[in-house]
Amino acid sequence: MTEFIPANSLFIPLPSPFPMKRGGELIDARMAYETWGSLNADASNAILILTGLSPNAHAAANGGNPETGWWEAMLGPGKAIDTDRWFVICVNSLGSCKGSTGPASINPVTNETYCLDFPELSIEDGANAAFEVVKALGISQLACVIGNSMGGMTALAFLLLHPGYARSHINVSGSARALPFSIAIRSLQREAIRLDPQWNLGHYTEQQYPENGMRMARKLGVVTYRSAMEWDGRFGRVRFDSECFDDDPFGLEFEVERYLEGHARRFVHKFDPNCYLYLSRSMDWFDAAEYGQGDVMRALASIQLEKALSIGVHTDILFPLQQQEQIAEGLRAGGCEAEFAPLPSPQGHDAFLVDIERFSPTIAGFLAKL
Amino acid sequence: MTEFIPANSLFIPLPSPFPMKRGGELIDARMAYETWGSLNADASNAILILTGLSPNAHAAANGGNPETGWWEAMLGPGKAIDTDRWFVICVNSLGSCKGSTGPASINPVTNETYCLDFPELSIEDGANAAFEVVKALGISQLACVIGNSMGGMTALAFLLLHPGYARSHINVSGSARALPFSIAIRSLQREAIRLDPQWNLGHYTEQQYPENGMRMARKLGVVTYRSAMEWDGRFGRVRFDSECFDDDPFGLEFEVERYLEGHARRFVHKFDPNCYLYLSRSMDWFDAAEYGQGDVMRALASIQLEKALSIGVHTDILFPLQQQEQIAEGLRAGGCEAEFAPLPSPQGHDAFLVDIERFSPTIAGFLAKL
Repeated sequence: MTEFIPANSLFIPLPSPFPMKRGGELIDARMAYETWGSLNADASNAILILTGLSPNAHAAANGGNPETGWWEAMLGPGKAIDTDRWFVICVNSLGSCKGSTGPASINPVTNETYCLDFPELSIEDGANAAFEVVKALGISQLACVIGNSMGGMTALAFLLLHPGYARSHINVSGSARALPFSIAIRSLQREAIRLDPQWNLGHYTEQQYPENGMRMARKLGVVTYRSAMEWDGRFGRVRFDSECFDDDPFGLEFEVERYLEGHARRFVHKFDPNCYLYLSRSMDWFDAAEYGQGDVMRALASIQLEKALSIGVHTDILFPLQQQEQIAEGLRAGGCEAEFAPLPSPQGHDAFLVDIERFSPTIAGFLAKL
Repeated sequence: MTEFIPANSLFIPLPSPFPMKRGGELIDARMAYETWGSLNADASNAILILTGLSPNAHAAANGGNPETGWWEAMLGPGKAIDTDRWFVICVNSLGSCKGSTGPASINPVTNETYCLDFPELSIEDGANAAFEVVKALGISQLACVIGNSMGGMTALAFLLLHPGYARSHINVSGSARALPFSIAIRSLQREAIRLDPQWNLGHYTEQQYPENGMRMARKLGVVTYRSAMEWDGRFGRVRFDSECFDDDPFGLEFEVERYLEGHARRFVHKFDPNCYLYLSRSMDWFDAAEYGQGDVMRALASIQLEKALSIGVHTDILFPLQQQEQIAEGLRAGGCEAEFAPLPSPQGHDAFLVDIERFSPTIAGFLAKL
């Protein structure tokens, strides 16, 4: 059970006890966050970024930590999310292992790592925890809440649960509810971890670690984060020099297999398996329809916002484009000026991390109009 | 190591030794096949069906075996492949475990199951073995060779290696070469089996069986054989009665998860894991470009055929529609009258097995013109 906390992270304690949506509560929990830019006098220039499953709060280099962040190209002085104008906050998700309290943290009641004793985690808990960070920073209304992927779900939960707390919203490759294909993929990822004997019902160690399960889960993730179209051009049928690998008769042979293996090896020991399980399951459970008497569109239409932008890409198989279109339509039905921006990125779900050429002007253009 | 041979299968011995493309040879190997209808006097009405990875040769009920076959709706008197007119042969693929020789068969040289001592299997070996069946039945030219999925690759190999042996061809959701997304998915399926400690480098037993690995492989297969669109309508976010399952905190909850589990349980002990590995890998290796000096289109254009039909569906993520379009274009470039039939089936790669309403008239229309 390891936590992976960026250097000089900031922390805010959550109210204790912090009640969880599906039951149970957290004692002495905390949220890790980072900021960029300066809050103006009337605290009206704040933007909150909610992340996908795995990123930490270090979205870009800043005073506390000069290392390159996971959205470095998007965030900084003069960039799309211009930190000369905006005060930007990024939080590490509740339930993660990168500074905020999660299954890999110590349970102060028992003095042992939570593991599976962590209460059931929902997207709404993440939204409420992020809300506490915003409040603690003295911000009574955000100029914008931006959510990517899982963070797009968290952002919708934030808007549904805390009406009036944001004037605008950018939803990036998000969704208002998990659909069965995505549930199936995540279910297989969780099963791969759970089937690894070293998972040991959540009680692994660095020495007895569910490495194979995590590797499978990550590879399946990467397969669904990118797109077949991109890979045709990028890898084709190229083989790598097989002497780099073992002589297993069914071992890796194609470049695309080596790419997946490399991704998996880098990830396996940098994310806690139990945290992965909790966050993954929270996405399956999320359904905005709960806030619209069973009707997603009704729920979205109940959200109070001035402007919104919902961005997606044609090649995303995990959060398909219709889901971002649905978000724009639903918000529009509630009187919000909501744009839908379908982008022709070939990179699939991950495009927002890499297709800066398309995402940057789209996001910059929206923020410029605020 | 079990073989799963349909009742009253017919067998034809392969020439012994039977040389394999990538080296090695098979001694006293055999092919299982079934037939429907009657061969006419000049042996001009024969159709050969080449299957996907898992089916046996029992495509439909016949005199030898009244059980429903895997393509029952397509094949029979008055059906799309009309057995009142055609003499239809379906072979079980070389390397399978359903009657034809494969890794689960006894190696006559050692009197032990081949397991991983089976020589490396390529799609071309399957095509050559099917060719021997056709020849042994006294047929010097097929009216049509039909190949589904993997069988679409085998059919192209058959046409490339045995020019003039077929007048026409129907390629159903096939491809002229494996592309990286499909390779990645199959690589993960094989890795799931290989990571299962009970796989034991191919030396499992019914008691010590790589059940978890096979279950993961099959679930991932089913996810990629169908489509997100179909599942949205079919499963939505419906939960099943959780009392049917255990109380594992990360256990199955959604109908889509139960559907996958059910599919997997039915498959796991009905297909030999080593055969699965061999057949799966043979698809990754297949590349028609080898027969066109590195150029797929050139290879396809070298095929001698009068007429061809290449069918695919928009929702297929494993053998995407562009691949069937490429087959039609390539064959056309060689002077063949080749139709491309993109169908709007929601069922993805598996549509040819279930969307009979669309596939049946398409195939019937083509065969009627022969």
